[in-house]
Amino acid sequence: MTTDAVDLRASFHVVTGGAGFIGTNLARALSGAGAEVLILDDLSLGQRGYLPPGKAIRFAQVDVADREALSAALSQASGYPSVEVWHFCANSDIQAGAHDPKLDLRSTFQTTFALLEEMRVRGWTTINFASTSAVYGDQGDTPLNETATLLPISNYGAMKVASEAVIRASCESFLTTARIFRFPNVVGMPATHGVIFDFVRRLIADPICLSVLGNGEQQKPYLHVGELIEAMLFIRCRTAAGHHIFNIGPLDAGTRVNQIAQLVCQAIAPRAAIAYGVDPRGWIGDVPRFRYDVSRLLRLGWKPSKTSSQAVEKAISEIVDHELRGR
Amino acid sequence: MTTDAVDLRASFHVVTGGAGFIGTNLARALSGAGAEVLILDDLSLGQRGYLPPGKAIRFAQVDVADREALSAALSQASGYPSVEVWHFCANSDIQAGAHDPKLDLRSTFQTTFALLEEMRVRGWTTINFASTSAVYGDQGDTPLNETATLLPISNYGAMKVASEAVIRASCESFLTTARIFRFPNVVGMPATHGVIFDFVRRLIADPICLSVLGNGEQQKPYLHVGELIEAMLFIRCRTAAGHHIFNIGPLDAGTRVNQIAQLVCQAIAPRAAIAYGVDPRGWIGDVPRFRYDVSRLLRLGWKPSKTSSQAVEKAISEIVDHELRGR
Repeated sequence: MTTDAVDLRASFHVVTGGAGFIGTNLARALSGAGAEVLILDDLSLGQRGYLPPGKAIRFAQVDVADREALSAALSQASGYPSVEVWHFCANSDIQAGAHDPKLDLRSTFQTTFALLEEMRVRGWTTINFASTSAVYGDQGDTPLNETATLLPISNYGAMKVASEAVIRASCESFLTTARIFRFPNVVGMPATHGVIFDFVRRLIADPICLSVLGNGEQQKPYLHVGELIEAMLFIRCRTAAGHHIFNIGPLDAGTRVNQIAQLVCQAIAPRAAIAYGVDPRGWIGDVPRFRYDVSRLLRLGWKPSKTSSQAVEKAISEIVDHELRGR
Repeated sequence: MTTDAVDLRASFHVVTGGAGFIGTNLARALSGAGAEVLILDDLSLGQRGYLPPGKAIRFAQVDVADREALSAALSQASGYPSVEVWHFCANSDIQAGAHDPKLDLRSTFQTTFALLEEMRVRGWTTINFASTSAVYGDQGDTPLNETATLLPISNYGAMKVASEAVIRASCESFLTTARIFRFPNVVGMPATHGVIFDFVRRLIADPICLSVLGNGEQQKPYLHVGELIEAMLFIRCRTAAGHHIFNIGPLDAGTRVNQIAQLVCQAIAPRAAIAYGVDPRGWIGDVPRFRYDVSRLLRLGWKPSKTSSQAVEKAISEIVDHELRGR
C-alpha cells in the first residue's frame, strides 16, 4: 500500500509537533489524502519553513504542555464532528534531556498529559502516538517485540513510557482508539537532529576530520521517514477501535555508526579522517545496539521496501544535497 | 528472616509518605533496626497521629512534588555520609484519580520526579520505591512476573509506571541502586483506605445492609503490612547495587471481595444483608482479578507465612477492634 490509497476526506486531524521532522511529513501526507489538518508546534525544534503548504493546513504556535494555550489553539477544531489527534511533539534531543530531565518531563510527558485532558473534555476519542524503541532500553541482541519489558535508559525513553502509560489508562475512561507507534531511528528530510545530520554539518565545517561519539560499533535499525509515514497510515486504516502497539522498523539488524560515518565522508570529504571514541555508547542513555521484531506489523500486511542501509544512504543523499545547496 | 535480624545502625533513611499506612509501618521498622529516619508527608492521607515515636525519627510536613519545599525539608539530612530514600508517598485513592488525573500526576509522579532531582544534586544514590501490581493492568488469570508487559488501566497505575521509568533511566546517570517493590493489595493498620476499611466503616454506620461496588467476584492477592515490611527489608539487605524489581505477594490466587464482605459482616453485624452490583469491576481502573508470580522473591529466599485470606482476617480483626474502640 502507498499513501496514495488512503482517503481521509471530510476528516479533521490535529498534529502536535507538526512543524518538526516527522510531524511535517505526516501533516503533508494527511493533507494529501484529503484531510483538514491543524498543526500545533512551539517551534523550539520545528521550523515555520517546514510547514507544508495548502489551504487545508492551519498552524498555531503553542506550547502543548501549557493547558490554557493548548485549549485556545484547539478551539479552531471546535465544530468538527470528529477530530483525530496525532501526538508527535516531544523533546527529540535525547542528550540534552540527559543533562536536564525537566526538558523531557515538559516537552515529552506533560504535553501528553495536557493533550489527554483536553481530549477528554472535548470528547475526542482517537489518539495516534509517536513512541520509540527507546522505551525498551538496552536489551542487547534480543529481538524486541511489543510485549517486551520496558526498561528505558534515557529520560527521553522514560517520558515516552510514561506517555504510553497514561494513554493506556485513558482507554479505560474516554479513549476508544489509541495507536502507539514505536519508531526505530528515523532518517530523511527536513533533518533537525540525529547522527546523519550531525555528521554532515560537522564534515562541512571541518572536512579534515570527523570525530564520532562512541566507538562506532553502535548498530541500530533505520527507517526512512517516507516509509514510516506509509506504515502509520497503513496501521491507521487497518486497525479498529482499541489499544494497539506496533513496532515500526526495517527487517534487518541495522546499520553501524562507523558505516554511516564512512558514507557521509564519501559524500562530502572522501579523504577526511574518522576519529572514534572508546565507549560503546555515544552518550548517557544511548542504546548501543538493539534488534526490532516487527512481525506484528508484517502480519497486519505492511513491509518496508528499504533496508536500514538503503534508508541511511537515501537520507545522506537528501541531507547532503540540502546542506550543500544552501552554501 | 524477621525484621529483628536487620541492623541499620548508623544509617540515615528518608521515608516519603511516612505518615501513611505503609510508610509509618516502614519507618517504625527502620527505626527499630537502629536507623535514623526522616519522614516527609503532606498529611493529605497520612496523619500526624500515625507517626511512630522515638528520638531517631524526625518529621517534616511537606508536599514532595514542591521542589523548593522538598529541598528545604531534606536539608535536615545534610551532613550524613550516606542517605537512603524510601519513596512511598502517592495518591492511594485510585477512584479519585480516575475522576481527576491531576491527583495522580502530582502526588504519584511529580513527587518521584522532584525527589530524583533532589537526590541527583545531593549525590544520594539509593532509592527504594513503592510500586504496585496496578502497573500490569488487567491481564486476567495469567500469573504475572516482573517481566510482564505493563498495560495500566488506572491513572494510579500509569503514574507508577511513569515513576518506575524515570527511576530506571536515572540508574544510567546517578543512581547506583534502585529497588522497585510491586505491592499486591496490602492490609493492616493504620488503615486509611481500601476495601476492608471501607466495609468496616460503612457497616458500623449502617449495620442493616452493606452495598458492594462490583459483583463481588473480584479476586486479588492480599498481604498483611507486617509481612510486606519484612519482605522489603529482606530484599533491601539481600540485593547489591543495580536495578531490582520484585513482586511481593502471597503464594495463593487471592481472596474474593464477597468473602471479605462476609467476614466483615460476621465481625460487626452478622445479620446484615449484602447487596452486590452487577459490574465485574468495582470502578473505572479496578482490576477485577490478577495473579501474581512471586518466584523471584522466593528464589531470593523470602516466603510469606500467611495466605491472602489469613492476611485479610488478621486485618479485619485489627481494623474492627480499632474502629469499635473509638466509639
